[in-house]
Amino acid sequence: MKRIQLYDTTLRDGTQGEDVSFSVEDKLRIAQRLDAFGVDYIEGGWPGSNPRDLEFFRRARQLRLHHAKIAAFGSTRRAKNRVEEDLNILALLDAETSVVTIFGKSWILHVKQALQISEEENLEIISDSVAYLKSQGREVIYDAEHFFDGFKSDRSYALQTLKTAEAAGAEVLVLCDTNGGTLTHEVAEIVREVKKHIKSEIGIHTHNDCELAVANTLAAVQEGAVHVQGTINGYGERCGNANLCSIIPNLQLKLGYKCVEDEHLRRLTELSHFVSDLANLSHRKHLPFVGQSAFAHKGGVHVSAVMKSPATYEHIEPERVGNQRRVLVSDLSGRSNISYKSAELGIDIERAGEHLQEIVEDIKQKEFEGYRYEDADGSLELLIRRRLNDWQEFFDLEGFKVIIHKESKEEKPVSEALIKVRVGDECEHTAAEGNGPVNALDHALRKALEKFYPQLKEMHLADYKVRVLDGQDGTGAKVRVLITSRNSDASWNTVGVSTDIIEASWKALVDSIYYHLSRSSVGKAEAAVIR
Amino acid sequence: MKRIQLYDTTLRDGTQGEDVSFSVEDKLRIAQRLDAFGVDYIEGGWPGSNPRDLEFFRRARQLRLHHAKIAAFGSTRRAKNRVEEDLNILALLDAETSVVTIFGKSWILHVKQALQISEEENLEIISDSVAYLKSQGREVIYDAEHFFDGFKSDRSYALQTLKTAEAAGAEVLVLCDTNGGTLTHEVAEIVREVKKHIKSEIGIHTHNDCELAVANTLAAVQEGAVHVQGTINGYGERCGNANLCSIIPNLQLKLGYKCVEDEHLRRLTELSHFVSDLANLSHRKHLPFVGQSAFAHKGGVHVSAVMKSPATYEHIEPERVGNQRRVLVSDLSGRSNISYKSAELGIDIERAGEHLQEIVEDIKQKEFEGYRYEDADGSLELLIRRRLNDWQEFFDLEGFKVIIHKESKEEKPVSEALIKVRVGDECEHTAAEGNGPVNALDHALRKALEKFYPQLKEMHLADYKVRVLDGQDGTGAKVRVLITSRNSDASWNTVGVSTDIIEASWKALVDSIYYHLSRSSVGKAEAAVIR
Repeated sequence: MKRIQLYDTTLRDGTQGEDVSFSVEDKLRIAQRLDAFGVDYIEGGWPGSNPRDLEFFRRARQLRLHHAKIAAFGSTRRAKNRVEEDLNILALLDAETSVVTIFGKSWILHVKQALQISEEENLEIISDSVAYLKSQGREVIYDAEHFFDGFKSDRSYALQTLKTAEAAGAEVLVLCDTNGGTLTHEVAEIVREVKKHIKSEIGIHTHNDCELAVANTLAAVQEGAVHVQGTINGYGERCGNANLCSIIPNLQLKLGYKCVEDEHLRRLTELSHFVSDLANLSHRKHLPFVGQSAFAHKGGVHVSAVMKSPATYEHIEPERVGNQRRVLVSDLSGRSNISYKSAELGIDIERAGEHLQEIVEDIKQKEFEGYRYEDADGSLELLIRRRLNDWQEFFDLEGFKVIIHKESKEEKPVSEALIKVRVGDECEHTAAEGNGPVNALDHALRKALEKFYPQLKEMHLADYKVRVLDGQDGTGAKVRVLITSRNSDASWNTVGVSTDIIEASWKALVDSIYYHLSRSSVGKAEAAVIR
Repeated sequence: MKRIQLYDTTLRDGTQGEDVSFSVEDKLRIAQRLDAFGVDYIEGGWPGSNPRDLEFFRRARQLRLHHAKIAAFGSTRRAKNRVEEDLNILALLDAETSVVTIFGKSWILHVKQALQISEEENLEIISDSVAYLKSQGREVIYDAEHFFDGFKSDRSYALQTLKTAEAAGAEVLVLCDTNGGTLTHEVAEIVREVKKHIKSEIGIHTHNDCELAVANTLAAVQEGAVHVQGTINGYGERCGNANLCSIIPNLQLKLGYKCVEDEHLRRLTELSHFVSDLANLSHRKHLPFVGQSAFAHKGGVHVSAVMKSPATYEHIEPERVGNQRRVLVSDLSGRSNISYKSAELGIDIERAGEHLQEIVEDIKQKEFEGYRYEDADGSLELLIRRRLNDWQEFFDLEGFKVIIHKESKEEKPVSEALIKVRVGDECEHTAAEGNGPVNALDHALRKALEKFYPQLKEMHLADYKVRVLDGQDGTGAKVRVLITSRNSDASWNTVGVSTDIIEASWKALVDSIYYHLSRSSVGKAEAAVIR
């Protein structure tokens, strides 16, 4: 099985993406995860371009990596500089990594317009820079920037730049589609041509501007490239870099190449979430292989077929990349989806009888109001149990008031919540402050209820998301609030919708508490009956 | 120039996507836009599957389309039914469209496991169904479901199903990669093989489960397919359908096929936004060709090169698909980005002198706190003008109080805001209600200020977005609020960040008002000086 080198540039090219930025701490954590996953090279940053990257390389020396090598990225020397005095080259050496990746120009347009030097001088720059870094004991990876555009404009010159880097000692020559404009058949043809002239290992670095980054990478590998550059989740400038989360399973599960150990591949989905969490970006549901929807079934025909035989509608077993099958409950779904979902939630839907249709209607009505249960299993379970009369009122709200008070332009506002709840015959009237109105309300509600339900101390809110449903009404639009709650061994999601963000949050909060109470108050014997 | 037929299934397969749903009204509006854009076929829905689709077809008869034909989608007849009594087939006829698209089985696994019939019986079903619809005067498009999987498992049977549909009179035979698991080289080889046996027009329908839907479609066209099925923005089940917004420009601008008129292609970005607006989904920035980031430049090296010559870092001219170039201001950006951006905003940065570095520092500090200016030009302009002393305080806040009061479990909460502002020597203390706390605060602030600045009546809030920045603190997390405001001839975006959603909204609101006031209070002569 042919081995492919994985070169991750999430920490460098990935951070060129709009919205993507990592703290030094984040970068160190990601580097460790990439190493554990089995990536071969981790490009940590561009030491010559910003202080945060310098700091990263300083601290990365302390990392104990098991497999991966850290690479520092930078450009070849500047036109007029002597290589040993070039600040960028010196910064690369100061990073003290065993691997250095430098990019040089392959495209005459760039040589003439961006660098404004002669073709010959560009070759000298490439040769000098590679040779000097080699002489300093570095493994050198040469990124041929704009290689495909350069090849199309002047194939002999583009090849000459590669040969120059090869002769100067570069270990791998990486063909970069920097603008992302090259089509798949062109990549295949050009890599095939390059292989005729170059003996060194060939790498591929693509961008997604034509939505072809993954296909272009696969085509290059099929033509003999052995080194693949990309980022987790395809983060990167403009439309992103080649997405390693799609490339790795395609290469390993479909084309028979070896990238990482199979047991590491089963942690791909987790890695993808880890990186999006640290990037503070929501994890895109529709991501191939690792997205929450990648193995989700909504249409009735699909659902009933998948129930018979998963291979009918799934191209791989989701477990191989650490993902899982999901059946969605939605407007389009019929009774078979609800049955499947109920079984998954541990509810015996056989007992539902005539209630089943009512449940379907409830869901349709709620979805019409803006609810979505695809992400809110906790609220869905409560909705179903309520219809099945498997339900207990844990408290009654007699009212709440939330006050946000800002004393002057400079002062931060103070939020406090007053709440009155009734449990059985007892009434509790209390108040609490919080970091914002929803947080205050959450504190007050717990303060009021913990007296009756001490088990609430076991749960906490882990995530809070707000989605404005219809942007056209400005601040008067409907919002959907999704809350993730956790206790020591489980997490659950609940949803609330309203034009008022406090009301929407309230609904999701109450569901999260009801869910916890109904789970924790059910004794084991009882639970067995319900299942 | 070879003509390619575009078959849009946003309204049918697109709505299988998680989160995607359209009202009948939405569907009619989208159909009209697709027609105006130049799509050849618009698949409106599955009349046999849900009432909303029936209603769509009823109302679609009144649409005056200039170019496109509406297609109704459904399955071949059920196994035991006579075709003329099959409810699904009858529903297709009742839709009264000139075109009917039906799918049949190509894969023996499905014939045996899903339908549980013989191979011969499956051929009869295909033949009957196509022939009957033809006899009723319909143009019939035959979708060969799971064709690639079927071909790989039994090529001769898969071809036989196509030949059966062809013999029964189907106009186009569409090869579907229903599970999205087929690789690009396989699609190319299989289409090439099919072309040897089939004379009718071949179509291609792919899914994005391997992140290859666009590449697979292009490969099929290069091997002779003339009919392309896909959706706007790639909406669709699991990882989505083939994205027409990427396929069309690739085919037309790069491969020399003709899909739509060039002047229509220049409205592609607008069409993409229109559909995402109606789907109520945020428009994904990183979408190829049509995304807000598709031609955005962030890294310093790129920005300075693009300023010299756009072709160095852009694979096509953004105007050809109706998009535009953007330069991003961010943490990674240096003085050249700020200069470019300032010029775009009409600020003469030459006057900045020593302030330029302060502006860069301000932006870095704010971004550290969670601000992003990539989407908030209004707030960025205010930040720059403030440092340039090109600034006026329009009012002083003396304090506000927002109260949200919920009287009982059933009642909706009432939000009211009290506000005290000072303009010069005058103080205004007032209050207003609203649909939620932010809306109430917005109303109260305007009520207080309109007395002094009647021009505030010209502006309104058009969009309001909330993003929780760090999910790990639950309801105590930081939120970023983005507000879009409009007057009759412009729109602008402002941003606010805080752990308190009211405070974050307040900051963005105040910026939006300052922006409007500073623009509207500058006389034309003054404006000329500033520029």
